Amino acid sequence: MAKDEIREFRLVGTRPDRPDGLDKVTGRARYGADISAPGMLWGAVVRSPHAHARIVRIDSSKAEALAGVKAVVTRADFPTGLTGEDWNLQENTMAGEKALYDGHAVAAVAATSALRAQEAARLIEVEYEVLPHVIDVDDAIRPDAPVIREGAADATVPEGMPPNVVRYIDFGRGDIEAGFAEADLVMERSYKTEATHQGYIEPHACLGQLGEDGKGEMWVCTQGQWFIRRMCTAVLGLETSQLRVTPSEIGGGFGGKTTIFMEPLSLALSRKAGGRPVKIVMSRSEVLRATGPTASASMDVKIGMKKDGTLTAARAEFRMQGGAFPGAPVDMALYCAFAPYKLPAVQHIGYDVLANRPKCAAYRAPGSPMGAFAVESLLDEMCRELDLDPLEMRLKNAVNTGDTSSYGPKFGTIGLIETLEATRAHPNLSAPLGPNQGRGIATGYWFNHNGETSVSMALSEDGTVQVSIGTPDIGGSRASIALMTAETLGIPYEDVRVNVVETGALGVNEPTHGSRATFACGKAAVEAARQAIGEMCRRAASEWGIDPEAVEWMNGAAQPAGPNAGEFPPMTIAEIAGKMGSTGGPISGHHESVPDGVGASFGCHVVDVEVDPETGRTTILRYLVVQDAGRAIHPSYVEGQYQGGAVQGIGWALNEAYIYGEDGRLQNSVFLDYRVPVASDLPMIDTEIVEVPNPGHPFGVRGVGETGITPPLPAIANAIHQATGARLRQLPMSPPRVLAAIGEARQG
Amino acid sequence: MAKDEIREFRLVGTRPDRPDGLDKVTGRARYGADISAPGMLWGAVVRSPHAHARIVRIDSSKAEALAGVKAVVTRADFPTGLTGEDWNLQENTMAGEKALYDGHAVAAVAATSALRAQEAARLIEVEYEVLPHVIDVDDAIRPDAPVIREGAADATVPEGMPPNVVRYIDFGRGDIEAGFAEADLVMERSYKTEATHQGYIEPHACLGQLGEDGKGEMWVCTQGQWFIRRMCTAVLGLETSQLRVTPSEIGGGFGGKTTIFMEPLSLALSRKAGGRPVKIVMSRSEVLRATGPTASASMDVKIGMKKDGTLTAARAEFRMQGGAFPGAPVDMALYCAFAPYKLPAVQHIGYDVLANRPKCAAYRAPGSPMGAFAVESLLDEMCRELDLDPLEMRLKNAVNTGDTSSYGPKFGTIGLIETLEATRAHPNLSAPLGPNQGRGIATGYWFNHNGETSVSMALSEDGTVQVSIGTPDIGGSRASIALMTAETLGIPYEDVRVNVVETGALGVNEPTHGSRATFACGKAAVEAARQAIGEMCRRAASEWGIDPEAVEWMNGAAQPAGPNAGEFPPMTIAEIAGKMGSTGGPISGHHESVPDGVGASFGCHVVDVEVDPETGRTTILRYLVVQDAGRAIHPSYVEGQYQGGAVQGIGWALNEAYIYGEDGRLQNSVFLDYRVPVASDLPMIDTEIVEVPNPGHPFGVRGVGETGITPPLPAIANAIHQATGARLRQLPMSPPRVLAAIGEARQG
Repeated sequence: MAKDEIREFRLVGTRPDRPDGLDKVTGRARYGADISAPGMLWGAVVRSPHAHARIVRIDSSKAEALAGVKAVVTRADFPTGLTGEDWNLQENTMAGEKALYDGHAVAAVAATSALRAQEAARLIEVEYEVLPHVIDVDDAIRPDAPVIREGAADATVPEGMPPNVVRYIDFGRGDIEAGFAEADLVMERSYKTEATHQGYIEPHACLGQLGEDGKGEMWVCTQGQWFIRRMCTAVLGLETSQLRVTPSEIGGGFGGKTTIFMEPLSLALSRKAGGRPVKIVMSRSEVLRATGPTASASMDVKIGMKKDGTLTAARAEFRMQGGAFPGAPVDMALYCAFAPYKLPAVQHIGYDVLANRPKCAAYRAPGSPMGAFAVESLLDEMCRELDLDPLEMRLKNAVNTGDTSSYGPKFGTIGLIETLEATRAHPNLSAPLGPNQGRGIATGYWFNHNGETSVSMALSEDGTVQVSIGTPDIGGSRASIALMTAETLGIPYEDVRVNVVETGALGVNEPTHGSRATFACGKAAVEAARQAIGEMCRRAASEWGIDPEAVEWMNGAAQPAGPNAGEFPPMTIAEIAGKMGSTGGPISGHHESVPDGVGASFGCHVVDVEVDPETGRTTILRYLVVQDAGRAIHPSYVEGQYQGGAVQGIGWALNEAYIYGEDGRLQNSVFLDYRVPVASDLPMIDTEIVEVPNPGHPFGVRGVGETGITPPLPAIANAIHQATGARLRQLPMSPPRVLAAIGEARQG
Repeated sequence: MAKDEIREFRLVGTRPDRPDGLDKVTGRARYGADISAPGMLWGAVVRSPHAHARIVRIDSSKAEALAGVKAVVTRADFPTGLTGEDWNLQENTMAGEKALYDGHAVAAVAATSALRAQEAARLIEVEYEVLPHVIDVDDAIRPDAPVIREGAADATVPEGMPPNVVRYIDFGRGDIEAGFAEADLVMERSYKTEATHQGYIEPHACLGQLGEDGKGEMWVCTQGQWFIRRMCTAVLGLETSQLRVTPSEIGGGFGGKTTIFMEPLSLALSRKAGGRPVKIVMSRSEVLRATGPTASASMDVKIGMKKDGTLTAARAEFRMQGGAFPGAPVDMALYCAFAPYKLPAVQHIGYDVLANRPKCAAYRAPGSPMGAFAVESLLDEMCRELDLDPLEMRLKNAVNTGDTSSYGPKFGTIGLIETLEATRAHPNLSAPLGPNQGRGIATGYWFNHNGETSVSMALSEDGTVQVSIGTPDIGGSRASIALMTAETLGIPYEDVRVNVVETGALGVNEPTHGSRATFACGKAAVEAARQAIGEMCRRAASEWGIDPEAVEWMNGAAQPAGPNAGEFPPMTIAEIAGKMGSTGGPISGHHESVPDGVGASFGCHVVDVEVDPETGRTTILRYLVVQDAGRAIHPSYVEGQYQGGAVQGIGWALNEAYIYGEDGRLQNSVFLDYRVPVASDLPMIDTEIVEVPNPGHPFGVRGVGETGITPPLPAIANAIHQATGARLRQLPMSPPRVLAAIGEARQG
């Protein structure tokens, strides 16, 4: 859709206050730890101090003898016979025969106070037989590495692969060797990234209650109450409908709150404690040791390029560990790695490798930042070699609407070229650079996910409207869905209340993940509103005694149309609502689907850094995010997503990493040691919203939440190279490592 | 529908455990007072000690100076300009210029503890100018009675009526005087009943939170969360959708929890206290003084009867006070009074009269017990006079399907004759009676209400089902709706979870009142299930590549039908659910309507009593309830309703009454003085369920909750007459009053 075709909207694109704003600034909003219930107990978890150990014996007698202790659970309290991902979830929730990583839960206890529960946890004696462990992905893939689990490899893994490889990926197209032969420059490099954590402010917290009748309730901080429901009932062997899960407000998730950790423990403890509710709140250390960080990656990339910058072929081989269970996002990393580029020949190889580390969870565009770090760094290196402008090289090779992607499917309407052009035009690109300063550029890509979606809309007696959605509001989706609903209905934004509801009140919804909430729930909300409009027109037609087809909806009112135009005054939504009890009953609209028409979002980041040659410390001077939003429903929250993604990427690039000791134990499990960027580390992140509307959404929305974390890793590496001459191919680019690289570059 | 036409059902009519059973016996169920929230305050209410007084001044300065006091509200904190019933609700919630009854709220305070709030309430100084008051309905209707409110009379009240008459009713049909002239016996008598309270175990309790942005939440013990929402937002001037109301479990309501009392006070206090949540829990004394008891009645009834028992004409004039506001159920009392009988001529006159007493609320079949007490007592007296069998007289005059009712509309399919015949056949009627023992019989009638209804059903991933309903479960409706849903879907009862949801998650629902929940929500749940079945058949058809019309649903599975029968194996609900994510998304069913086809339920009660001639104490020896349920979905809960109604009627007949002093203050505001029947007062109540299916409901349901409270009042009076020769025409028939009546009867 060309720019001049873009319709003007009454509300879409404006920036009203978020409906949950006052709640959140006054403390009225209730987060995971804010719920209590009569008779409540507190849970505490006993965690393995070993990276890999056989559990010989668990003796909880001393703990059980302690006054106030009401229940102790171990794996023996869980059903057996689970398979596949259900088994993985159960095993990760509570260790069975072996503890598989430092922090792996081996028992849990519920008592009348948090302190008493912690005291009891310390009294639970666990006898371990310590086993050899492996932490690094390149160590874990060795044929002689300690075997973490026999028989975990899936059908993709050929005979003879090293024992910790559990999935093997190999896809591509074109004649890769001919492509490299055609190139003027072929370069191959290796890269490594470390595991990082989402670093959400709010630790995991839940309150679970489960009776011997198999009926339960849970209040929990999560991105997806139906995922929690499904996983908890699978792990505990319950009927899905019998557990009602209510999501609290959420202090960040970034993918890390789409799965279960201590939630089934609170339910199992509750069941054993006669159905008393059990609250578990994780400490920061438990969050870092025993929830789901990203995978770490070791990557080889080879690219062929002509002198004019045209890409001829590319090959990527990625090895990732996602902890002691299958699930490293190596597939996603490969899909995204070359997605921005037209490539005649491309080959992707991937290995998912087990290591003695916590089971990775999703983290904002899972896999994409690692692949981009490798590919976008190498492209920058090749542009330097061939003296090409890195932005122009990207423009020359950029995919466009209708092109076949590097990973197979054809792109729909996309806006990468518009994004790169908007980047070129931005004043940040002509800002002067001083000594020890450098500018880096990189692109990034992420899909949009659709996912199962159920939305209901109901009219209230005064003509205001409520929308029930199943996706917790993390980045302002209440505001964006209220805007789209109000726009569709032709009523004020303030007259729509968007409610995030519990599982027992709505059909299945996937979580707020995959950049899907504004796209999928927004589309479903529009469909639900249209259904309600249809019913409101029928009510008006019935009252007017005319055909429903002869009624149209305009400006929040039913209006006689066609031959009846002007015959009756418009009937407003408030008038229709006021008498719905006597005209046929309540008026609602519903929509359930896996919405089609997902978009995809490309971004381009430009960063200026200054590197202190004495200390190796990198300072971010300027940071620009340009990204295609399709259409920004609420531009402030789109900008917020751009800025948040960039900041997390900056942290990942410069400082964040899981640091393990020789003993396989995590050494930096608090925020003092695991260093996330804080406000004083950062300049204002500049943003520019490109709008190439997604024709698959009624308002043109693309999901924007994830792409922004992808370009910072290579963009900063590229900027550091320009500032210092040193090319860093391993994250994080911490001061000691930068200092060493500068030293090597000077020697080199 | 004749008995042999009744279909057999797989689940309907069975007696499984109620889904909330374990919750309720283990204390896991959460009632109104069981919710707390961070930063919570406690509210206390200052109440008028006068029956009628002008409020001259309220000084809250001492209370506000007390540490821990966070807000004080008076009527000045409420919006002005309300009219009609909204104004009545607001005025009853918080007195304005005048306190209108003993216990009327005049101020409220929120503090950091319940004790501190009560202490602060005592420090609030209210200066009153005491006004003359009136309590009894016959006093209140006098032309010279103290005027409670100028201008409260509605358009039905003719010029020149006494000042406290606010509504006048006059309707009937036929030539009433000719009817009386045709009779062999015309008798006219006067009757009085006292106000009684529903006596629910659980006092009113709520936790309200309201911000300056007009957004609020409430947890409350109620029969109807949408009524609470509508009334609170009306009284406080808020947008309806902005308040989310979650119902707790409910320890009884019986109509008394269909309106607001302290709920708006908690919201107003919260708003003034910066949005902190405010909990208010009423004491029993507050419940009795300041919630909504029944009306009291003074009634004249005149009936003409031929020697053979045929009724020729009837006239009723009912005067009721429902407190200081319009709303006594005199209309309902008149509609029900003669409803069981064919009457060629009938006249109804009614007066709704203000008095200085709390605003009445609904109480189980509101109005019907009073009218029945008068009419059924008089019929008994006339049968004695004409030596007729009271049951045969009723059978001779009983209305049947298609007859025009005494109040106007034609009856649909009804089962009064079947009910009377079942009564006649019951062994209790031939039980021998000893000295001082008597048997009384009476019939009773109540409508079914339909009301606005929204129900949603959603399939879970494992093929279990949840049903979202908006009517709190008082008498077992979770079980009955699960049975009807499971029957419709062809799945086990245990696979359906029925969830009572908050207002923010579903379209408008009327409360659990008017004997509507099993009828209306059940019918809507069946419709929602049928919609989901349609979608499941479409999914199967799509997978099989056949026409959806060629798929039928049987035994919980889609089955190819017609030409395709047997071509594919059945696809079960669990199979369809397991892959719904890849076949089109979530599967739900929805229904919103005001369901048509309401039934109506007649009952006949037979009671045997023994009256101690020394003390006047009446002992219930045997008690039989026979009532038409249409079809009993869960017979145990139908029997429970029959028994519960009978017991409340027994209490009303024998002991319960609001007792006011000369000063207009309630003298028996605790359960030690306000005497409800307890288990040791009662025999097992025998029940017999008559089933004349209601053709307006898919399973034939009639609402059964209310009729049962109507016959006990006259049945016991009739039994006491037979036991003692004394005819009591005023309730309660307490020992002193029975003793006095025996004395009079002996003298007479």
